[in-house]
Amino acid sequence: MELGEQLEIRVVKDVILRRKKHNDVEGDIGLTGHQLVFSRRSGSPRGTTTDDRDGFLEVLISNMWQITEKPSSTPPSLSIRLRDMRSISLLFPSAENQEMHKVAKSIGKINELTNPRLAYPFYYHPNVDFARESGWSLFSIDEEFDRMCCPPNKWRISSVNLEYAVCPSYPGRCIVPMEIDDETLIKVSKFRQSGRFPVLSYYHPSKETSIMRSGEPLVGPANRRSKEDERLLKASLTTGKRGFIMDVRSTQKAQQRQSRGGGIEIEAHYPHWRRVHCTVEHKLSVLQESFVKVVDACCDKSGSSGTWLSKLRSSMWLSHVTDVLVAACKVAQSIERDGSSVLIHDTHGFDTTIQVASLTQVLLDPFCRTIQGFKILIEREWISSGHPFGDRCGQIGFNRANEAPIFLLFLDCVWQVMQQFPLAFEFNETFLRLLFENTSSSAYGTFIGNNERQRNELDLSRSTFSVWTHFASSSVTQQITNPIYESHSSVLWPSVAPQSIVLWSGLFLRWEGGPEPLTDFAEEVQQVGTKHLRMKESVLGLKEELRRLEDEVQQKLTEISEGVE
Amino acid sequence: MELGEQLEIRVVKDVILRRKKHNDVEGDIGLTGHQLVFSRRSGSPRGTTTDDRDGFLEVLISNMWQITEKPSSTPPSLSIRLRDMRSISLLFPSAENQEMHKVAKSIGKINELTNPRLAYPFYYHPNVDFARESGWSLFSIDEEFDRMCCPPNKWRISSVNLEYAVCPSYPGRCIVPMEIDDETLIKVSKFRQSGRFPVLSYYHPSKETSIMRSGEPLVGPANRRSKEDERLLKASLTTGKRGFIMDVRSTQKAQQRQSRGGGIEIEAHYPHWRRVHCTVEHKLSVLQESFVKVVDACCDKSGSSGTWLSKLRSSMWLSHVTDVLVAACKVAQSIERDGSSVLIHDTHGFDTTIQVASLTQVLLDPFCRTIQGFKILIEREWISSGHPFGDRCGQIGFNRANEAPIFLLFLDCVWQVMQQFPLAFEFNETFLRLLFENTSSSAYGTFIGNNERQRNELDLSRSTFSVWTHFASSSVTQQITNPIYESHSSVLWPSVAPQSIVLWSGLFLRWEGGPEPLTDFAEEVQQVGTKHLRMKESVLGLKEELRRLEDEVQQKLTEISEGVE
Repeated sequence: MELGEQLEIRVVKDVILRRKKHNDVEGDIGLTGHQLVFSRRSGSPRGTTTDDRDGFLEVLISNMWQITEKPSSTPPSLSIRLRDMRSISLLFPSAENQEMHKVAKSIGKINELTNPRLAYPFYYHPNVDFARESGWSLFSIDEEFDRMCCPPNKWRISSVNLEYAVCPSYPGRCIVPMEIDDETLIKVSKFRQSGRFPVLSYYHPSKETSIMRSGEPLVGPANRRSKEDERLLKASLTTGKRGFIMDVRSTQKAQQRQSRGGGIEIEAHYPHWRRVHCTVEHKLSVLQESFVKVVDACCDKSGSSGTWLSKLRSSMWLSHVTDVLVAACKVAQSIERDGSSVLIHDTHGFDTTIQVASLTQVLLDPFCRTIQGFKILIEREWISSGHPFGDRCGQIGFNRANEAPIFLLFLDCVWQVMQQFPLAFEFNETFLRLLFENTSSSAYGTFIGNNERQRNELDLSRSTFSVWTHFASSSVTQQITNPIYESHSSVLWPSVAPQSIVLWSGLFLRWEGGPEPLTDFAEEVQQVGTKHLRMKESVLGLKEELRRLEDEVQQKLTEISEGVE
Repeated sequence: MELGEQLEIRVVKDVILRRKKHNDVEGDIGLTGHQLVFSRRSGSPRGTTTDDRDGFLEVLISNMWQITEKPSSTPPSLSIRLRDMRSISLLFPSAENQEMHKVAKSIGKINELTNPRLAYPFYYHPNVDFARESGWSLFSIDEEFDRMCCPPNKWRISSVNLEYAVCPSYPGRCIVPMEIDDETLIKVSKFRQSGRFPVLSYYHPSKETSIMRSGEPLVGPANRRSKEDERLLKASLTTGKRGFIMDVRSTQKAQQRQSRGGGIEIEAHYPHWRRVHCTVEHKLSVLQESFVKVVDACCDKSGSSGTWLSKLRSSMWLSHVTDVLVAACKVAQSIERDGSSVLIHDTHGFDTTIQVASLTQVLLDPFCRTIQGFKILIEREWISSGHPFGDRCGQIGFNRANEAPIFLLFLDCVWQVMQQFPLAFEFNETFLRLLFENTSSSAYGTFIGNNERQRNELDLSRSTFSVWTHFASSSVTQQITNPIYESHSSVLWPSVAPQSIVLWSGLFLRWEGGPEPLTDFAEEVQQVGTKHLRMKESVLGLKEELRRLEDEVQQKLTEISEGVE
């Protein structure tokens, strides 16, 4: 077995585990092809005050983001930074560093494997009785077509990409304007970056407006145009209405792309459309750097309040969050208030474009704010539409250069909206956090691969379990449900003032010092909510019993009076 | 009547009221000696979408902090910044500015009056049936002596200051070590700044440790000492124990005071005590500037996320909050973990000293985290101990140079702890906010004057109502109660890491744009909590009825069977 061969060592005894907010514990570590397991030695002289939970720790090797050997520290130690933002240290007994080096090397080799079939989800079988199919069949484009009330005389589901030949990153079936036939779509795909021709992302039935997504137009230095592309865009509009092309790159950056074959729509060729630019950072390295900086700032407890605010500022994380929110609010405004359709694109159409399109739907559509609706939104807009989770979130065999927190930024934006409208979401921040954790290192197959084609090749639905099935289990459902949710159908207009955008402490500061206010608080609210429900049931039950007893009394009384008569 | 004479104008018609988060409303303003009243004109062509609440606005003149006339704007307008952080504008119809100027001048003259007897609380009579005494008799030093379990063989209540002759800013009766007689206290008072001899602030019965407060020692350039002072400090310690003198000024600043007659205790003369410095900003102008800066930053919606974080940083507000928290944690640690008593002082002993001493008690003593306990804490440590509310918070006739957010900083620290331990407080942030609002502009007499002497002279308890009586009314109690409070007796150890200290948005951003998440959320939790309680009562009632009916059924059955026999 390929995995086992990578292990240069399987067990090290007498290692000390050091973590924040925990006492040191002494025990043994075991390495498997997918996990590092630490188990406390019974009667370990250290960590006497720690509770049982501290005695055992399992970490997926795919969760390990950075491993630093410190051979000259006393004792020699291995620092491991995890993708879920935790840091742990293993202190080795021997001064020779041999064992430590072997552990580090084994982990490194496993994480360098490029065969996705070796990933943990292919080996994982949940203990509980799992309906293997349910999560994989969560989303269907036909059902979504109906749910969004797309008028069938205006829109249709095309199977032009069924073999993934027209656009490798698109799903087999996409919603496009009725008027546009498959041959036109093929032509349009040649005029759009990565073959990503404009497809329907969201339809607003009462306003008869739509959000579409695509790659940039391949205008190039020769100022090319595509009559088919122009026709597609026109066909997407309701007669008499107009639309906006929202380029989520700066004007300058979008224009620079022209020399490299891309560029911007020439407005003269799209008379019913106006182009606007709403800058959202899309450079992967810039976003990744921002993420690393904000995580570093959160770990650094040494500085003053001033230093912290400075570092938070210079990470630019909250600026990026704000930018995505601003863009989504603009699209929502256009759809809901101005009654204009919107085509969103950046360069490739599978990063920022998806961020903005899906966040807009969270604002506009109450269904997306339910647990089921949010799952489907992620399936439809992110997974099925080809956001490259494999590349961005570091699944097995990934290339670090392509890593970027695109999906996390989206989750952070949702969290910001949730903060401002705490009753509007059926789920809580735990759901968002668990989603983040499962994108980077997971026992489930949902976020493996970059697109539907790759996922089909891997036959994921047969060889792995879906994270949605996991989330549907009753214990997880309880954990991720907002007990004070109140369904209401209005659009959310969050404040994007800088004062309103705050650090998601439940995620970024989760493993840091101090109490965990939000979790405690949320748990307590959860408990009150649950108690409240149970109490309600109990009242109903008692009322029922009361009614029954009253009947009984009445009957006895009748019997008695009849007996007397 | 002196007040009415200040009014140069009483009514202005056709004024437009402009506020954040509201539409403009047209109406009339009326000025009384204490209030500016705006009432919407019925059928006003503007503000058609505003609700009824927007039709009427009453603002206390004592709440007006800054009034800016803008005679050359079209129309001429008056900008009013309120002490509760709101801003409103009045747009006047006439281009002559005469009326606007008269309004501004009247307000200015009223706010310049120096006779405290003209303040609004002396005129205010609540509508509801109010037990006038209850709030004024909330606090008694005898009851507190017993509640804190001060051993009567170790501590006593001295009446040496009954005439306020020994220390004008102290209450008539103070807790001091048993061994120290009144004559010694008089001698000690001459060695302590402002006559503030060391008095007991808090006693920890199980650890037998105490917190004392005082003014700085008057060591002066001649290196004076006071055997009586040394004896007092020694007498406060349990035999065999040691103590810390916590000077909440920097070493340098404390030493500089020596040339001006003050200074620091010379450790050689206090063999059982160790002096430590824990710097908390105490300069009034610096603190006031920080407050103004943070409020300005919150109002400025124009900047980016980066600008906002920079302004928040340069206001230094969160640094000041952190410093007070750090000092209180150190005192708590000494009392609870090290078993050492602490004497806290700055220069005068009625600003920073009180901040730190009272915050420590919030951490140590669960009683101070109840509504009743927190009220008593404020009465005992702030009002009775002579924190100059009149000077610091701008009651009638105040001097702007003495204004400083000392009490607000304390409230902010309590809010930070509350954020970290959301179950530990019986009250919620609304209580803290209402306290802040009532210190600067109030209908109640509680925060008038600088000390007990002044308050007695004004005969406040007979001529005004107490804010505590107001807070005890059922509607306010419901508003300020934390529905998820769980009483527990442990000490709170908050995180003081810079990441844990955040802006109190419910206070500072209350009037700013965007939804009000915390209020909404808290209200909802409140509702679930209340429903939960009602449900519980209902279950009990139903169970009771069930039992009654079962008895009834049983009795009938017995009757029947007896009848049959």
